Amino acid sequence: MPKQKKLKVAIQGLAASFHEVAAQTYFDQTIEVMECLTFHELCEILAKGKADYAVMAIENSIAGSILPNYFLLQQYHFSIIGELYLPIHMHLMVLPGVKLSDINTIESHPMALRQCTEFLQGITTNGHRIDIRESDDTALSAKRVKELKLKNTAAIANELAAKKYGLQILEKRIETHKKNFTRFLVLSRKTTENKQANKASLRFEVANEVGSLADALMILKNKSINLTKIQSIPVIGKPNEYSIHVDVEWSRRKNYDDALKLVLRQVKNLSVLGEYRKAKIEYN
Amino acid sequence: MPKQKKLKVAIQGLAASFHEVAAQTYFDQTIEVMECLTFHELCEILAKGKADYAVMAIENSIAGSILPNYFLLQQYHFSIIGELYLPIHMHLMVLPGVKLSDINTIESHPMALRQCTEFLQGITTNGHRIDIRESDDTALSAKRVKELKLKNTAAIANELAAKKYGLQILEKRIETHKKNFTRFLVLSRKTTENKQANKASLRFEVANEVGSLADALMILKNKSINLTKIQSIPVIGKPNEYSIHVDVEWSRRKNYDDALKLVLRQVKNLSVLGEYRKAKIEYN
Repeated sequence: MPKQKKLKVAIQGLAASFHEVAAQTYFDQTIEVMECLTFHELCEILAKGKADYAVMAIENSIAGSILPNYFLLQQYHFSIIGELYLPIHMHLMVLPGVKLSDINTIESHPMALRQCTEFLQGITTNGHRIDIRESDDTALSAKRVKELKLKNTAAIANELAAKKYGLQILEKRIETHKKNFTRFLVLSRKTTENKQANKASLRFEVANEVGSLADALMILKNKSINLTKIQSIPVIGKPNEYSIHVDVEWSRRKNYDDALKLVLRQVKNLSVLGEYRKAKIEYN
Repeated sequence: MPKQKKLKVAIQGLAASFHEVAAQTYFDQTIEVMECLTFHELCEILAKGKADYAVMAIENSIAGSILPNYFLLQQYHFSIIGELYLPIHMHLMVLPGVKLSDINTIESHPMALRQCTEFLQGITTNGHRIDIRESDDTALSAKRVKELKLKNTAAIANELAAKKYGLQILEKRIETHKKNFTRFLVLSRKTTENKQANKASLRFEVANEVGSLADALMILKNKSINLTKIQSIPVIGKPNEYSIHVDVEWSRRKNYDDALKLVLRQVKNLSVLGEYRKAKIEYN
């Protein structure tokens, strides 16, 4: 029997990062993750065909949209074929046997550290002196604790990183906002029609004049198309124009197709970034 | 004659940072800038009455909105009393007498480094080996070069930093996008009516249902109110609700007042973050 070829999926960051968790959750088969240092490298790897898909964080419920990634989507003309909402849970992890009182340093990605502000303040107000150190990736911090055998350092990372690097979780769920999530997009070089799609990401431009956006949104309303995200982005060098990113959902495909035809006549430079199945936000 | 008391203005970052340039440009009198390490500290200083005003970056034409600052605005209930668009020009600066060939390190804030990608790539492709080092602030890099007498390091910072630290500009305007700007808000603890106002920043919530936002925008359209920015932000823990930030402009005040009354009945939790004179974007 021929061995089935594993899907290659590019992720930003190291294995065991939240990007890997997102990729593993999305694809219901064994995948090979390809670590990329930056989002730009992620796009290059996909564009050159070295990966079948790429998984890219696009927004976080606390930090907001990762706007540079919208520019990358536009630049590379990838197609969004799916999305995923991942709850962001952070744990404090150490080498086996290390106790909380042994720790003098806590390290993680700056965003993860900010996410755990209340926990970190709680530790230091108890008179326990802790240095906070920033790293490029939550998984990298876990890896460093393991490989450098750091007995006085704890990493803040996810459960997968604890498992992968054999670290012991000292404190679970130390994130301040328990319902924080990150939304990831699954990207492909090719556009293939998805008959099951009930959500789309669109981009268009409107002039900075009274009501041009209102008219476009009214078309969506009249066709019962739901808007789940809207964001204006200034067009560099053109202070009176801006581009609009919207995510829309529908229950009847025909309504969406009809609305799209009308919107196309209302706005400028319309791009369909992708049509895909909407994902649920599941808190646990 | 009594000496006039200087206005105290809190800024994020060091003196000679872009925040100081914004503050000095906005106020047409001598001010005393108060350096704050973080945006959170900036808000604390203003809230406690240690500063008369605060100047806060809110969005950049390339990097987008600084969403955490929207959360801070909401949390502290400050009033936006003005805005300013500052063109972001970057220069490469060194100790007097140092030549380009002497440099083996270039340091600046990560955002500034990213803004000068093309220049940095150009230098390295000429076979010139350069280390790139990140710092917390463009002005801090200039200060370090001066105070530590770093003869092999160049800083990327603005003109004010070059003047303040007596550095020589080796290469002018090395930013990739020549028309990049940052928008700053001027904040006050107190709300005072500005009869000259022709712009406002509003925040409200809409349910994730067909058309609730379209209806609100249609009210603005019908009253000839122009929309210059729109952004949805997920409400944490409530996946079906989101808050909307809009900036609106008008030429007749009565239209705005009338529209506000109608919008108030259309949306939930409406906040007027500030009413102020709109600023021009001036490229040079």
